[in-house]
Amino acid sequence: MENQISPELKPYRQPDHEISADYVNRWSPRAFSPEPIDDESLMRAFEAARWAASSYNEQPWRFLLARTDSDRAKFLDLLIPANQEWAKTAPVLVLIISKKTFTMNGQPNSVNQFDAGTASGYLTLELSKLGLISHGMAGFDRDRARTVLNVPADFDLLAVFAIGKHGDPALLSEQVREREVPSGRRPVSESVMEGGFTLPKEKSAEEDTIPDA
Amino acid sequence: MENQISPELKPYRQPDHEISADYVNRWSPRAFSPEPIDDESLMRAFEAARWAASSYNEQPWRFLLARTDSDRAKFLDLLIPANQEWAKTAPVLVLIISKKTFTMNGQPNSVNQFDAGTASGYLTLELSKLGLISHGMAGFDRDRARTVLNVPADFDLLAVFAIGKHGDPALLSEQVREREVPSGRRPVSESVMEGGFTLPKEKSAEEDTIPDA
Repeated sequence: MENQISPELKPYRQPDHEISADYVNRWSPRAFSPEPIDDESLMRAFEAARWAASSYNEQPWRFLLARTDSDRAKFLDLLIPANQEWAKTAPVLVLIISKKTFTMNGQPNSVNQFDAGTASGYLTLELSKLGLISHGMAGFDRDRARTVLNVPADFDLLAVFAIGKHGDPALLSEQVREREVPSGRRPVSESVMEGGFTLPKEKSAEEDTIPDA
Repeated sequence: MENQISPELKPYRQPDHEISADYVNRWSPRAFSPEPIDDESLMRAFEAARWAASSYNEQPWRFLLARTDSDRAKFLDLLIPANQEWAKTAPVLVLIISKKTFTMNGQPNSVNQFDAGTASGYLTLELSKLGLISHGMAGFDRDRARTVLNVPADFDLLAVFAIGKHGDPALLSEQVREREVPSGRRPVSESVMEGGFTLPKEKSAEEDTIPDA
């Protein structure tokens, strides 16, 4: 391991193969500090996103940024109430959109959302490496967001990310605080299939009876 | 800069903000060495992908892997001829698919492709850090791939990645070799918009007349 998995994450997250702890240390808390973040950290994270691969190097991603009080209020109002409740504290909100057609010829780009997801992954990984947190939300009013934020018809509205510093979970409502736990993942072996689609292997009876060491 | 941008990439790629060179050093060559790659490196890259964020932690991504001669022939045959020409040399091909609905309730998952893109981004970043190359392709026959590889109707077929070691560009056809150049990116400032969608600012006449230093 090149670096250390954070002690708060260790009980929930153990990789099966040796990797940088950066991937494991990035998680999605909801407890944001209201403290502002510095612009250069944010730009460094967008710089990471910039170098994502994309089909024909289209770079279909765009990032709509809210960091003034009035912009934050405008973006916040587009979220579902359950997200507004905790995202209101975050100093930065970012809506990620992606262009549905290729600029060079106007043809549909079937992987625009996929490529925007790659850029978004680098954004959030880099934020985490910079000591910041982010939490993505699919729960927002896309139709209203398109109108309010002037998003052209040729762009898909994908996700809103709350970005900031990790705050005190004690300030969350009890209901939200109960969910403030790092999520695990299914093992790599259940996501990788050899030669074609196969259902995960059933555990054999023998394996099931092997006690934990 | 935490580490160094590779000399072969420097003429094409200069970040505007300080970031790890890992993001900049990942590019998508077509010159693959036929040499096999070790299984553990591949699994480490899938481990990185594993920790991607996803809506409701659905982890919609699955990776269909071809690394035997017969599996590689089967996958290769699904690519468009222009991709087959160079991808035939890669020791590993991976088809990335994503589940269109949430497992917990069967409802549509509007961000499944986006989340699979995040996982794919970590996969390719980690491969690059391990000294391997990858090249993603949207050009393949999705309908035939679904049938041949038994992909259920509930999954989207997104992209095929060729994975391996960087080979000698001299072995590429002249036509492919001409494209074997690292791509640049538009500046961060053109992807980030404050407060809502805006078109990139026109350069002022004054800026246009500033000569290169």
